[in-house]
Amino acid sequence: MDALKGTANYPVIKVRGQEIEKTEEPVIEEIPLTIYLNGKELVTMLAAAGEENYLVIGFLATEGIIQKMDDIKSIDINIAQGVIYVTTASGEVAAEKMFLKRYLTACCGKGRSAFYFANDVLTAKIVNTDLRITPGEIIRYSELLEAMSETFRLTGGVHGGAMAAEGKLIYWSQDVGRHNVFDKLYGRCLLDGISTHNKVLVFSGRVSSEIVLKVSKMNIPIIIARSAPTTLALDMAEELGVTVIGFARGERLNIYTHSERIAGL
Amino acid sequence: MDALKGTANYPVIKVRGQEIEKTEEPVIEEIPLTIYLNGKELVTMLAAAGEENYLVIGFLATEGIIQKMDDIKSIDINIAQGVIYVTTASGEVAAEKMFLKRYLTACCGKGRSAFYFANDVLTAKIVNTDLRITPGEIIRYSELLEAMSETFRLTGGVHGGAMAAEGKLIYWSQDVGRHNVFDKLYGRCLLDGISTHNKVLVFSGRVSSEIVLKVSKMNIPIIIARSAPTTLALDMAEELGVTVIGFARGERLNIYTHSERIAGL
Repeated sequence: MDALKGTANYPVIKVRGQEIEKTEEPVIEEIPLTIYLNGKELVTMLAAAGEENYLVIGFLATEGIIQKMDDIKSIDINIAQGVIYVTTASGEVAAEKMFLKRYLTACCGKGRSAFYFANDVLTAKIVNTDLRITPGEIIRYSELLEAMSETFRLTGGVHGGAMAAEGKLIYWSQDVGRHNVFDKLYGRCLLDGISTHNKVLVFSGRVSSEIVLKVSKMNIPIIIARSAPTTLALDMAEELGVTVIGFARGERLNIYTHSERIAGL
Repeated sequence: MDALKGTANYPVIKVRGQEIEKTEEPVIEEIPLTIYLNGKELVTMLAAAGEENYLVIGFLATEGIIQKMDDIKSIDINIAQGVIYVTTASGEVAAEKMFLKRYLTACCGKGRSAFYFANDVLTAKIVNTDLRITPGEIIRYSELLEAMSETFRLTGGVHGGAMAAEGKLIYWSQDVGRHNVFDKLYGRCLLDGISTHNKVLVFSGRVSSEIVLKVSKMNIPIIIARSAPTTLALDMAEELGVTVIGFARGERLNIYTHSERIAGL
């Protein structure tokens, strides 16, 4: 992995106490990507450069626009112009209308953890697998993620995440956008035909409700985060059968929901 | 300030090495808030509890839906139901159509730092003030923000930000959403009739392009962040006349753009 991939050098004046230095430093690249679905503009995303194919596939899947890779007829990515053209097998634009509801319609949002976007009702599902892991594995995955992110940390500008199983990180990704990390990992699983129900997700950031929704849509039973969860995230995780582990740092971790998946408690 | 305001206690199993403890801990509250504009549903936001009036005012202003407080006829907030009803003086819904473009239309996004949302072309403006600050002031503001956030850090779930001037933090806010911090601060400035062109913003998080757009819309000349910027953020800051300072921690800081506002270099 090249530490400087996805970065560009920018001029910077560094001040350290009385010392002033004019130099250049790598800054994480953020690019706008506009997705056209069956010829119609769908959305503009802001993302870190790299893995754009994974990003768009994972995004379309978590939005419920595709269910499987066969639903995609073609993907044409033009990074220089910041555009991605996707055609689906069905050629329908109905899914696009559903996508808009995400921004326009709160469907039932009255309860404490009700779904507030029409889309999520269709795509979020209860995760039900017999995967179990030990606190030792959790600590190991968190350490592995930390180690993977080490080189990239010089830019300070990204969230990192990984799919893990059997003591190893399988896929690793990073992005300036929290959600993009999940879409990239999911897109890669779909493209490679990898099952997700027996994997765990390790994440550098905080666990908000939107992260729990992503995880449930990916059918992943366990999320291990190095940072904190929110109340709405925990309420949803309880309902959707997701095990949330937070503050996984060093020898410490907090198990918040569905602790039945943690062996040896 | 009550450290536990905006949090709720949740059950947690804490693992520290071989030690296992079942207890309760405060978790940051995340709530869905749906804004109705002149009787029509506009958007659902996810936010930390508290300062909802500031949030909605700042959001409407940065989206270009209102220009000044007089444009708002009434705001009716029902936290229990998670709804906010806003009526504007004009009663128009034209602004709503423009808001939608944010998600639907990339207007010109071909250049490196072009605006990719129709909205931003109308509301982002070049910041032009004669405010200058010293590295010492930057370090002080960053330390003050750190100190303010100390109590809230027990939940680990929030970004913090503040408006600062003359060596002091004037307003401080926090939220689970990065953008919400800026909307809350801006909303409060508008409500209190405080000018922004002679203030600086101090922020705990990373500076992405969307953050620079918020800052320019607020007409604030300087943003001091404890974390990293992205390339697109720096390109936009250069164009929009915003001074970006990153990695402001302890005695260190990086000046990226418009260093003419930093005295004594």
